[in-house]
Amino acid sequence: MPRVSEEHLSARREQILSAAWRCFARNGFHMTSMQDILAEADLSAGAVYRYFPGKLDLIKATAERVSYGLTAAFDTLDAVEPVPPPAEAFGFLASTMLQYIASQTEDLTRVAMHVWSEALREKEISDQVKTVGAAVLARWMNTASRWKDAGHIAPNAEVRDVAKVMYSTMVGFIVQRNLLGDLTVEQYVAGLDALIHSSAAPVSSDTD
Amino acid sequence: MPRVSEEHLSARREQILSAAWRCFARNGFHMTSMQDILAEADLSAGAVYRYFPGKLDLIKATAERVSYGLTAAFDTLDAVEPVPPPAEAFGFLASTMLQYIASQTEDLTRVAMHVWSEALREKEISDQVKTVGAAVLARWMNTASRWKDAGHIAPNAEVRDVAKVMYSTMVGFIVQRNLLGDLTVEQYVAGLDALIHSSAAPVSSDTD
Repeated sequence: MPRVSEEHLSARREQILSAAWRCFARNGFHMTSMQDILAEADLSAGAVYRYFPGKLDLIKATAERVSYGLTAAFDTLDAVEPVPPPAEAFGFLASTMLQYIASQTEDLTRVAMHVWSEALREKEISDQVKTVGAAVLARWMNTASRWKDAGHIAPNAEVRDVAKVMYSTMVGFIVQRNLLGDLTVEQYVAGLDALIHSSAAPVSSDTD
Repeated sequence: MPRVSEEHLSARREQILSAAWRCFARNGFHMTSMQDILAEADLSAGAVYRYFPGKLDLIKATAERVSYGLTAAFDTLDAVEPVPPPAEAFGFLASTMLQYIASQTEDLTRVAMHVWSEALREKEISDQVKTVGAAVLARWMNTASRWKDAGHIAPNAEVRDVAKVMYSTMVGFIVQRNLLGDLTVEQYVAGLDALIHSSAAPVSSDTD
């Protein structure tokens, strides 16, 4: 049996993932079978199952791919001193992530939306989404701590609450961009910036 | 043939919609057939098709139901003088919508997530989502104009950009709440409020 190079393994893995993303984007996660993915990748069952025994492994690899891009973007942001204020930090992360997504063979933000709806039904997918979500929230919490230290947010602000808003802002940006279109990072940063520099007095906390 | 009362028609319609929502929540939109909905509603094909000839009509009715709640919430907000500042306005709308959603037989925020992912694949559903989205953006634009008049956002802010952020904030709140849980309107308003009262200088617009 010939020795298989690392490059070959990696390229084969990429070929399968890419085929899976095309299938998910076309038919959603649930309607895609491993058989569809074999056909799309033009590979035998043996060749595919060696890398990905099931659809859940493909979702896991996709989540890892997205996490890798997010981690790199946050690492870069964390190295910037002083920390950029909220709207600018969001703009940096959104631009960096869009570039990263554009470097992949398919639009992973669309695949993500299929994964999210499927997470409402399947516990194993929900667990994957929660793992990525918790990691992203932790990075936003760290950023919010830096904002607090730099005086960008109030000293008594709960960093977890701020992180939750920033996480939602990112998710909402993706969903709105895919559903309604006509949304650039620049418009979004301008909108965030206008809100952040509002002149309103703090609201009381009895809104819920 | 007996005369059928308005109440009967309305109750029957509700029975079918409710069954459809349960099916969508359980199996997603794509995997649910009209046959599944007949079985769930325990009605004959004739009884169901009279009200909803196809799945798309059910999605349309669901979008109308969500729109009705949003319209009522924005109408109430519009009548408040002076306009509440951004975080408080978001808190009011989110609380009002969650109460409205809780008054329905199923959690329509979860149904919405299935509809959104399906909108990526089906043009007719995408068109429905765009219609609701445009209406919500228009209401946020109106609110942003009031914020501008009240001095809550800068006089040179683009109300459309601000509206896009607020729309995403709402969508992101729904997605995060359903995927990660552990998210209350109160936490979210506190997080928004901390960001809005940030002390940062405006960012330059070269972030994209």
